[in-house]
Amino acid sequence: MNLLLLTDSDFIGEDLVEISGRRHGHIVNILKLPVGGTVKAGLINGKTGIGTIINVDQTQLRIKIDLRDEPIPPLPVTLLLALPRPKMLKRILPICACLGVSKMYLINSYRVEKSYWQSPWLKAKAINGQLQLGLEQAGTTTLPVVELRDRFKPFVEDELESIAANTMRFIAHPKTDTPAPIALNQAATLTVGPEGGFIPYEIGMLIDRGFTPVSLGKRILKVETAVTALLSRLFT
Amino acid sequence: MNLLLLTDSDFIGEDLVEISGRRHGHIVNILKLPVGGTVKAGLINGKTGIGTIINVDQTQLRIKIDLRDEPIPPLPVTLLLALPRPKMLKRILPICACLGVSKMYLINSYRVEKSYWQSPWLKAKAINGQLQLGLEQAGTTTLPVVELRDRFKPFVEDELESIAANTMRFIAHPKTDTPAPIALNQAATLTVGPEGGFIPYEIGMLIDRGFTPVSLGKRILKVETAVTALLSRLFT
Repeated sequence: MNLLLLTDSDFIGEDLVEISGRRHGHIVNILKLPVGGTVKAGLINGKTGIGTIINVDQTQLRIKIDLRDEPIPPLPVTLLLALPRPKMLKRILPICACLGVSKMYLINSYRVEKSYWQSPWLKAKAINGQLQLGLEQAGTTTLPVVELRDRFKPFVEDELESIAANTMRFIAHPKTDTPAPIALNQAATLTVGPEGGFIPYEIGMLIDRGFTPVSLGKRILKVETAVTALLSRLFT
Repeated sequence: MNLLLLTDSDFIGEDLVEISGRRHGHIVNILKLPVGGTVKAGLINGKTGIGTIINVDQTQLRIKIDLRDEPIPPLPVTLLLALPRPKMLKRILPICACLGVSKMYLINSYRVEKSYWQSPWLKAKAINGQLQLGLEQAGTTTLPVVELRDRFKPFVEDELESIAANTMRFIAHPKTDTPAPIALNQAATLTVGPEGGFIPYEIGMLIDRGFTPVSLGKRILKVETAVTALLSRLFT
């Protein structure tokens, strides 16, 4: 935790928060901050600054908050991600938040198992919890917006054009020789398929809408490794 | 598992292997390959090709092996990695193998907890097991060489110059404004510090030996995210 991430409901006064649970445990047991100690803090989708511990007990912390700095700007990236299996979803959400993805659509694909759509990790509270871990890691506050789309065809036909308007459009696809571009530094919509890849019909629909298949090399990467590698190349 | 990774001891004939345990379970229960089915295969540090299932029983598989292709070449990278906590080490080893790191030194640093050096995950068998998972994911066979160095100063003073000879030298360091280079495509020695970073004395010793601190931006990344992001930028 490189930043104490706050929500409006943590505030018990204009510049005073009360923290319990996991964040309390981290500050008391891992960071071992005493009264008077300071911690980097930030309000979700708001500014960052400093928190000063003013009271510690076994279950609660009171922290005085002074937020003056703008958060690190997010990347101008919308990620379209074929819904991964729950264990991987849990892992990839904080990575996306940490790296600065602005918006994510978890989408369906022929190779997404139907049962994945029933996962409790898709509840808004669970998703936001994982995203917040990523912001705490990165040290910033801008929460990615995550949307679920459990039907591929209507999503692509009815929504994709407006989602991807005025952006560069790429599909991470091992079966192409076009390397992923470097230092694009432009708004982009990135599509990452399921384990085993999109089927040709799906790739075709995306190509028809201006998406270019790009490769990260011959090695087959896990989804979270591919997303990290792509974002690191595109934005510098 | 995108490749059935074989060792010499799997062979019971010139082109015949017998597989049990985890790999048997994966082929039978996940890939559900019948007799006659084929799987991409490769010999550790050797060629890749095709395996054809010739016999399946509840605990063993016999597979005919035909290896003719050169493996994907590894990246010309030596990674010096401050020993992470065991849970993270377990996760980062397959990622490094998957991405094609040639050689890794797990090194000490002031901020590496002494207890980490006692982890059972540092046993050669455990390390190689994790690396092999990464090769199976990537679909290739070149096993990174991993060395342990539990004293920072003698490592840097006595060994580092010859390890890093004729390579570009970088330290991933959040506290610099120099961005990590892009598309270097030259042999490199990369140094990645512990959680909390190297101390200034350590950074100084590395700078004295020609290492340039480079940044991946203001976000604080987990070690495995930083390694993935760095390698993806440096090699295209």
